[in-house]
Amino acid sequence: MRIVVLAGGIGGARFLRGLKSAVPDADITVIGNTGDDIHLFGLKVCPDLDTVMYTLGGGINEEQGWGRAEESFAVKSELAAYGVGPEWFGLGDRDFATHIVRTQMLAAGYPLSAVTEALCDRWKPGVRLLPMTDDRVETHIAVDLDGQRRVIHFQEYWVRLRASVAAHAIVPVGAEEAKPAPGVLEALADAELVLLPPSNPIVSVGTILAVPGIREAVASTSAPVIGLSPIVGGAPVRGMADKVLAAVGVEATAAAVAAHYGSDLLDGWLVDTVDADAVPKVRAGSMACRAVPLMMTDLEASAAMARAALELAGEVR
Amino acid sequence: MRIVVLAGGIGGARFLRGLKSAVPDADITVIGNTGDDIHLFGLKVCPDLDTVMYTLGGGINEEQGWGRAEESFAVKSELAAYGVGPEWFGLGDRDFATHIVRTQMLAAGYPLSAVTEALCDRWKPGVRLLPMTDDRVETHIAVDLDGQRRVIHFQEYWVRLRASVAAHAIVPVGAEEAKPAPGVLEALADAELVLLPPSNPIVSVGTILAVPGIREAVASTSAPVIGLSPIVGGAPVRGMADKVLAAVGVEATAAAVAAHYGSDLLDGWLVDTVDADAVPKVRAGSMACRAVPLMMTDLEASAAMARAALELAGEVR
Repeated sequence: MRIVVLAGGIGGARFLRGLKSAVPDADITVIGNTGDDIHLFGLKVCPDLDTVMYTLGGGINEEQGWGRAEESFAVKSELAAYGVGPEWFGLGDRDFATHIVRTQMLAAGYPLSAVTEALCDRWKPGVRLLPMTDDRVETHIAVDLDGQRRVIHFQEYWVRLRASVAAHAIVPVGAEEAKPAPGVLEALADAELVLLPPSNPIVSVGTILAVPGIREAVASTSAPVIGLSPIVGGAPVRGMADKVLAAVGVEATAAAVAAHYGSDLLDGWLVDTVDADAVPKVRAGSMACRAVPLMMTDLEASAAMARAALELAGEVR
Repeated sequence: MRIVVLAGGIGGARFLRGLKSAVPDADITVIGNTGDDIHLFGLKVCPDLDTVMYTLGGGINEEQGWGRAEESFAVKSELAAYGVGPEWFGLGDRDFATHIVRTQMLAAGYPLSAVTEALCDRWKPGVRLLPMTDDRVETHIAVDLDGQRRVIHFQEYWVRLRASVAAHAIVPVGAEEAKPAPGVLEALADAELVLLPPSNPIVSVGTILAVPGIREAVASTSAPVIGLSPIVGGAPVRGMADKVLAAVGVEATAAAVAAHYGSDLLDGWLVDTVDADAVPKVRAGSMACRAVPLMMTDLEASAAMARAALELAGEVR
């Protein structure tokens, strides 16, 4: 079974681990968000791609959900001793090596998709991991800081400020001119199932869909497109998705996120059991819908979610 | 007293520590060799500049004479896990931070001299450390490897092969087109004393002198120019200077190295007490010469060497 998953970071990676467990023989292509990419210390950092790669490859820091296990921070502390920041972005020594390899390959002329493939040669994530685009896209956020309207990088908003200031606009800079990476549109056209994991619908999945051609390819694929709500009981399962939903005027409810994606895109939508009352509302919006547990507390819970998505796909097929 | 020192790596750095101890109030400018610079993992590494900076700044690994104290190797081992080498060059995590800062500043458009100054803002080496040039110079060595004549980077010859193959030619690539870094010629013109520490006369001091204008400035400065022999008893005190001396047809003796520098350059030359019989020969070549202990076994021994150089300068002044 050919499955394509549009994935952000932690939520996407954990869902993918469940999916691999649920359908071990599936041929899975992951289209990864690169809108949260950032240049730090002259190095190209791709947090969402790395989270997927490390999680599926067995190198992730399980507790925090990102970064490497058994990490050390000698480089970062030395950079701070030189007065070189930012200090708010937690790059560990092992993680640095990934960014050094990536940056060196990019400088040598390889596109990000080829670099990602080379990095995955080591990690063997068991999926084909594609960046959404080889072009540079970086999500910026308009906020009020110290009484002034400022536009800052998503990571500064998310990691440094912890989304504690109101976001007024979310702009995936470069997305309009970006082209889908090689293989992205082909994978969507050939897919037998397309899944939207419970990733951030705005800054993760939304950014992938903002690359011209990708939303259209998802909307027009003959495969069922099934999404899983990242909002449970009116709040994000993890992260601060409610803050960025507010910025684009979308209510932080399972039903509102489904409507935001739209029935032109989604064929089915899973909500959590606590949001069972949203099911009729979603169905009224011309999508199949079921309420199932959506908390990825462990691998089995994630696998059950993947199976529920497969079942819903069977219903709409 | 304004002193200018042309320095390579370990020998130069240890001599400088002795010099600072001998004349704490001196105004010391160090012109550092950059011919052993190398790009590794996309980063600009300047081994000699860093050895001087770390040694005088208190960050050096005292036992090995290069690299950082209390070093760890997480980045290097991760790079190896990605199959990215070379593995023969021992970059530690703390050291990586220096190269990351340097590379980022160079990419931002700062010349190496400005970058070196910025790095020294942290280390406070107590000398003004100038790269010999802001231009790219990399020493290459012609060797026979596996039956073929090949030209390899000096570091590959020195670190990977440990100078175990015959060197046929030593070429400071880029030197002919290089310009002295800002401040280099001015420091030499204003100097009251110029010192050539017991650094490698070919690949360290020789490379500095190969930058057009520097040799001429040393030869024409009104200050005494005093050198210290890196060859003691017919062998290099450390390193493998004899191998590169052979490549340029210079005998590995204290007298032959003095003659190689030439009396147009040097006013005085210190040889070790075991080479006392070379003193008349050097004097016959129109240089002042004395035999004193030249083994930098500890700080006091290095300081005594610096004092001996100052005394010899007084003699020729």
